[in-house]
Amino acid sequence: MKLCVIGGGSTYSPELLSGLAEKKKEIPIKEVVLLDIDAERLNDVGEFAQRMMAHLAPEIKLSYTLDKEAALKDADFVVTQIRVGHQQARHDDTKFCVEHGVIGQETTGAAGFAKAMRTIPVLLDYAKDMKTLCPNAWLINFTNPSGIVTEALLRYGWEKTIGLCNGPVGMQMNVAHQVGVPVRDVQMDYVGLNHLGWVRKIIIRGEDRTKEILEKFSPYTATNIPDLDYDPTFYHALSTLPNGYLKYYYLQEEMLEELKNQKKTRAQVVMEVEEELLKYYRDPNQYEKPAALSKRGGAYYSHVALSLIAAIYNDKNEVHIVNTLNNGALKDLADDAAIEIPCVVNSSGAHPLAAGHVDLSFRGLMQHVKAYEQLTVEAAVTASYNRALLALVNHPLVNSEKKAKVLLDYFISRHNLQLK
Amino acid sequence: MKLCVIGGGSTYSPELLSGLAEKKKEIPIKEVVLLDIDAERLNDVGEFAQRMMAHLAPEIKLSYTLDKEAALKDADFVVTQIRVGHQQARHDDTKFCVEHGVIGQETTGAAGFAKAMRTIPVLLDYAKDMKTLCPNAWLINFTNPSGIVTEALLRYGWEKTIGLCNGPVGMQMNVAHQVGVPVRDVQMDYVGLNHLGWVRKIIIRGEDRTKEILEKFSPYTATNIPDLDYDPTFYHALSTLPNGYLKYYYLQEEMLEELKNQKKTRAQVVMEVEEELLKYYRDPNQYEKPAALSKRGGAYYSHVALSLIAAIYNDKNEVHIVNTLNNGALKDLADDAAIEIPCVVNSSGAHPLAAGHVDLSFRGLMQHVKAYEQLTVEAAVTASYNRALLALVNHPLVNSEKKAKVLLDYFISRHNLQLK
Amino acid sequence: MKLCVIGGGSTYSPELLSGLAEKKKEIPIKEVVLLDIDAERLNDVGEFAQRMMAHLAPEIKLSYTLDKEAALKDADFVVTQIRVGHQQARHDDTKFCVEHGVIGQETTGAAGFAKAMRTIPVLLDYAKDMKTLCPNAWLINFTNPSGIVTEALLRYGWEKTIGLCNGPVGMQMNVAHQVGVPVRDVQMDYVGLNHLGWVRKIIIRGEDRTKEILEKFSPYTATNIPDLDYDPTFYHALSTLPNGYLKYYYLQEEMLEELKNQKKTRAQVVMEVEEELLKYYRDPNQYEKPAALSKRGGAYYSHVALSLIAAIYNDKNEVHIVNTLNNGALKDLADDAAIEIPCVVNSSGAHPLAAGHVDLSFRGLMQHVKAYEQLTVEAAVTASYNRALLALVNHPLVNSEKKAKVLLDYFISRHNLQLK
Amino acid sequence: MKLCVIGGGSTYSPELLSGLAEKKKEIPIKEVVLLDIDAERLNDVGEFAQRMMAHLAPEIKLSYTLDKEAALKDADFVVTQIRVGHQQARHDDTKFCVEHGVIGQETTGAAGFAKAMRTIPVLLDYAKDMKTLCPNAWLINFTNPSGIVTEALLRYGWEKTIGLCNGPVGMQMNVAHQVGVPVRDVQMDYVGLNHLGWVRKIIIRGEDRTKEILEKFSPYTATNIPDLDYDPTFYHALSTLPNGYLKYYYLQEEMLEELKNQKKTRAQVVMEVEEELLKYYRDPNQYEKPAALSKRGGAYYSHVALSLIAAIYNDKNEVHIVNTLNNGALKDLADDAAIEIPCVVNSSGAHPLAAGHVDLSFRGLMQHVKAYEQLTVEAAVTASYNRALLALVNHPLVNSEKKAKVLLDYFISRHNLQLK
Repeated sequence: MKLCVIGGGSTYSPELLSGLAEKKKEIPIKEVVLLDIDAERLNDVGEFAQRMMAHLAPEIKLSYTLDKEAALKDADFVVTQIRVGHQQARHDDTKFCVEHGVIGQETTGAAGFAKAMRTIPVLLDYAKDMKTLCPNAWLINFTNPSGIVTEALLRYGWEKTIGLCNGPVGMQMNVAHQVGVPVRDVQMDYVGLNHLGWVRKIIIRGEDRTKEILEKFSPYTATNIPDLDYDPTFYHALSTLPNGYLKYYYLQEEMLEELKNQKKTRAQVVMEVEEELLKYYRDPNQYEKPAALSKRGGAYYSHVALSLIAAIYNDKNEVHIVNTLNNGALKDLADDAAIEIPCVVNSSGAHPLAAGHVDLSFRGLMQHVKAYEQLTVEAAVTASYNRALLALVNHPLVNSEKKAKVLLDYFISRHNLQLK
Repeated sequence: MKLCVIGGGSTYSPELLSGLAEKKKEIPIKEVVLLDIDAERLNDVGEFAQRMMAHLAPEIKLSYTLDKEAALKDADFVVTQIRVGHQQARHDDTKFCVEHGVIGQETTGAAGFAKAMRTIPVLLDYAKDMKTLCPNAWLINFTNPSGIVTEALLRYGWEKTIGLCNGPVGMQMNVAHQVGVPVRDVQMDYVGLNHLGWVRKIIIRGEDRTKEILEKFSPYTATNIPDLDYDPTFYHALSTLPNGYLKYYYLQEEMLEELKNQKKTRAQVVMEVEEELLKYYRDPNQYEKPAALSKRGGAYYSHVALSLIAAIYNDKNEVHIVNTLNNGALKDLADDAAIEIPCVVNSSGAHPLAAGHVDLSFRGLMQHVKAYEQLTVEAAVTASYNRALLALVNHPLVNSEKKAKVLLDYFISRHNLQLK
Repeated sequence: MKLCVIGGGSTYSPELLSGLAEKKKEIPIKEVVLLDIDAERLNDVGEFAQRMMAHLAPEIKLSYTLDKEAALKDADFVVTQIRVGHQQARHDDTKFCVEHGVIGQETTGAAGFAKAMRTIPVLLDYAKDMKTLCPNAWLINFTNPSGIVTEALLRYGWEKTIGLCNGPVGMQMNVAHQVGVPVRDVQMDYVGLNHLGWVRKIIIRGEDRTKEILEKFSPYTATNIPDLDYDPTFYHALSTLPNGYLKYYYLQEEMLEELKNQKKTRAQVVMEVEEELLKYYRDPNQYEKPAALSKRGGAYYSHVALSLIAAIYNDKNEVHIVNTLNNGALKDLADDAAIEIPCVVNSSGAHPLAAGHVDLSFRGLMQHVKAYEQLTVEAAVTASYNRALLALVNHPLVNSEKKAKVLLDYFISRHNLQLK
Repeated sequence: MKLCVIGGGSTYSPELLSGLAEKKKEIPIKEVVLLDIDAERLNDVGEFAQRMMAHLAPEIKLSYTLDKEAALKDADFVVTQIRVGHQQARHDDTKFCVEHGVIGQETTGAAGFAKAMRTIPVLLDYAKDMKTLCPNAWLINFTNPSGIVTEALLRYGWEKTIGLCNGPVGMQMNVAHQVGVPVRDVQMDYVGLNHLGWVRKIIIRGEDRTKEILEKFSPYTATNIPDLDYDPTFYHALSTLPNGYLKYYYLQEEMLEELKNQKKTRAQVVMEVEEELLKYYRDPNQYEKPAALSKRGGAYYSHVALSLIAAIYNDKNEVHIVNTLNNGALKDLADDAAIEIPCVVNSSGAHPLAAGHVDLSFRGLMQHVKAYEQLTVEAAVTASYNRALLALVNHPLVNSEKKAKVLLDYFISRHNLQLK
């Protein structure tokens, strides 16, 4: 069993690898290859990872390489965690957006569009290679914006793709923690899109405790999201548990103010953390997972990814909340839309549970954002300027077609997007 | 054949009546009753109308009354054109919205929500009376926001309701005028909601001329909408002819600026026109339709309403673009949503043509606005504070749940809405 | 304006042509070409037709030819009325079916499958020629089984196809006649498939008179269908007006008995009529439409076809019940299913009215037959033995997979079908 | 934890109880009550069951009673296994059907309609009692026709109903046995209705082995179904694994012949087995489960029911193939249709996996039978003669409306059905 990590030079790789070492009984991986295009960073991370794994799981063969072919050849699982343009692109995009009065955030905001546009062609290229190198591999997509990227892969590149996010598990863990029960006792009736989900019901050991939990506890918000509070009247009226990223929609104006007032962009914060991490990795005496990794973001990502791989490998029929094609599960969205939804995961993949119609209280926003996402996928796949413009015009956080054009033209020139 | 006009004291009634006089051969109406609750205005308008009709169509018996029962008794057609709270309410609502940084516009904007909330209960009350007084009557709804009000009537009050707007006909006439063909030669594949429609295709005598028309001519915008231009790149990318009210969405920021800079609200302008009209009506020497009526807005309304009545009465199987229940015609919206769509109109009502799926370029916005509209209907019908708040939160022109609450609380106190 | 009749050698052509002569003001056709592959019959029919038209409408140029290219070149309308294998094939198929205990009837019965299988490839070939010869022509499909053939053309050959049947108009005329009103006053809410439709509501001048009509009058049955009566209890329970061909389903056993007892097949009867007609046509002194044509079947076909052409040509926006793609009009069938449904017909074609869900009382049978039809289309288009077998297995009148195979193997050998 | 068995006097109860004893660790049931209306049989079965359980699981309190209130009071699970009219009704119904040339079979055949009609009202009555006696109980429906009865309960009586059948597990076990793998390794993509399902894909440890299995092995058929073989050509063309009961449809004529030639009805065979069993139960020395039980039919039923109860009680998130409301899982059927489908079962019930559209090769039959089923549910709930007649007319095994009426009138008089 072989695992290939595309974007293996990420400072985050050691987190994934240490998780793998912990689960080595359940997931009997023999070989891991870190693949990247940044030789220097790959060397730093790869050398450290080898030291670390030599201690934790010497039976797993760990290598790193710039050679796509060697890395992908006969892989059983391929994990993608790339960042085209690095943190600098993220910084520039989000800053430009905020300067023009638009929430830029790199997944939910307008910068998510830019990230999708520069990422999708790269991943579709890898998918093309995989057709001959590892035709049976599962592709676990970590790369943001995860919903959009996953949809592009599922529809245009790799059928056996499953898109991941740590959000749903974060929410589940938060509820479990607050209520004081084990995580596996918390059933969440979660529906929606990546970074745009709502929990309709929380069942704990057969009992519907949604109302009580909404009243007593505050919702989980990832550390990278400015921590503004909802008005309790609204929160009560909504009567579902919202994904943390929904604050960018429900508090659009307030979040924009917040972002305008931030001294550093999130990209700048992460760049500093990464510098610290790389310095640590370069130290030949270090072989333990650094504490600073927790500041890097992506809590539970390693856990989420490896549980998923374990469920597939061991044909577990476990329920995971992942991104996959709708195929009728959510009646308010098209069949070919990627959605984030509870799925039975087993050796033949992720099978969504039927979720019917969703309440009017969030149906429209979900449909609107999905239209933006699907236009983005189309734009990226067909390299169409018009569809790209319509994508941004349809983004609920971009409130003017003229501004959409300003942003698009900037993204095109900044990232050298080839649209026609 | 009897026609009752609810809100017959409107300064606009003479327009409707003069149209009726012109069509008297096709629509053999014997009796028209103007019903209102404002005695003074009703008297002024009613007296003038009687003088006018004595000249134009003495065979039609025209009366006016405050007595609901007498007015509705045995009516065959009931036209509604009420304005709960008068222009003053419109003025206050739209002003408050703009002061709080939200487009207030009384149909498409947040003030449309307020207008719906105070109008729906009143019309549902009339519908209740109609059950015994004129159980077979057709209700032609002129009252704005026409889409929302029509949906409320169709679902909760009066099955035989058809909602009207002059917008589609205005677009059709504009195209005919620009291309230089008779109006009836212009087939428009119009889909969407009231004040939120898109023409997908323009067929003239069997030829699809959409592309050419979009390239050569500028789109029609009603006189009451600030006349900002779209960026040609966007207009080209959209590749459908948009309803004029869509500018509030596609140019949200620019339109808001425009509204902030207006010296008078639209309500104030109309109030001045109405004063002038009422003064004219009160002059016992006048009996001709005043020229000033053209400033009142609502071009073609009389034409639109009477053509519809003629099509029903004469079982004409004509195609009209009206508001009715979806029932599957638009696959991207729920069956119970009121939509604005080409319908075959005959003696059994308006039957929508199947329109399939709409393109992603406007699907999401249409679905988002419809969710807002349906939440508004629910809120009005159940008098629910929570659903009202969620309606405003879901309005794409209200960009913060906190602001939604500020608006809602203002509307409640200004209009004494009874929500729980 | 040019009309081409594929299968113009049909003894029925004079009916169509005499209708054309009557409507020549409304349909200003300059040229008609009869195209056929049977030189002798074409000559007989063509010569007679020329004599007839010289009297009725000398301004219309009428010719006949075996030359596909000349016939189709620049046609505006193409009417298809072919019969691959002639009446002999019909005779053999229906006889074989009945001998094996299966209703063979050439549209609704198992012989309809065979007719579709040998007809679809031929018509798709013509459609291919039309792409270059007359790319803008409307194709009016008369050829049975009209629903299946029309679906094949719409999906795989010619987008501008409209499928016709005289059934719905026959029902409408029958109702008008019985009730004593003009035909145009009879609105029928007809839904379903060709030869498998139900009238849910009959509205006469705005009044729903369905119940009364069902109680008072017996349903219309075409002359070629054995005239068995429904049990009144069932007819009352059904509470819709059924297309005459539904007797083959609702009285499957009784109709089979009837067919077993017939001395001649319907094909044999028609062959005799045709012989008589051809003899008449060959007489150089004859130039009037023969009385015997009324025995030929297909009452109103000429009327139906020419009204449709007039509606298209004159952009009439008239409602006609025709066969076209569903596209969501009937929610219980797939979008790509051909259905028989009221459509607005104008210069851009036939646009179905939205019909929502149908009642359970006939939903299942309609869906079952449509599955058979779509499998037949697939089988014909892909030349697949397996899909052909599954088509027959899914035919509700074929009650055994083993019998389905016997029939299929016979059809293959009798008509030299090339399946793989 | 308390379990109540409605119809506890069934000779089959000891099978269920012995299963319960085996699973007592996983399902910590404290009390079981057998409820029946047949005092003598209940006494015989109850006394034996007490002896048996005293040996197997003395910690479980087992009682039997005719007192509905005592039996249902505070039950956590209610299992229904009633047979209104006993085997004699089954015998009479199936015999009458076959004598009239219709397959009578008591689930799939026309006698299934009669069984549903006399059973549904009885179970809805129990459901009414449960509202006050055990409002939180899960109802596990064993009673045939399981799909129809379950739909009636879900829609009109008891939301927390799950319908069971041993068929899918039988198929799964058969595949496992033939391929030589453990049952839990066999994933079946099963879709359809009760006794009308198709396995689209068989995945064994991540590998799609459908094609190989269909080629190598013959399909599973329950012992009570005449064992006719499909023609291999058809079986190959179908390319899905059909539920054994589908032979009544695919081999309608052959199965009818088979039934006509049977010397005893299945009811008579079962009556003999039951007599033998009751004699054994009455012997006060017996306390072991009798070998003859295996002849009684219903293999795996005990296993299926208890696994389901264990999954609910222990919040297992296990996949079971059960009958529940569609709610969009199968796009080709209505949301309110009961379907048989893989579900995630946990403490909040059975949650179907989204299954999308099914292939044309069986879509139509599935829809047709479901229409019959839903008409039957309607007929039973509203006691409507017309809907009952339409149900039978829509049954694909009843090939004449006249025959449908003959059957219906017989069922009404034989079972004293009160229809209007």
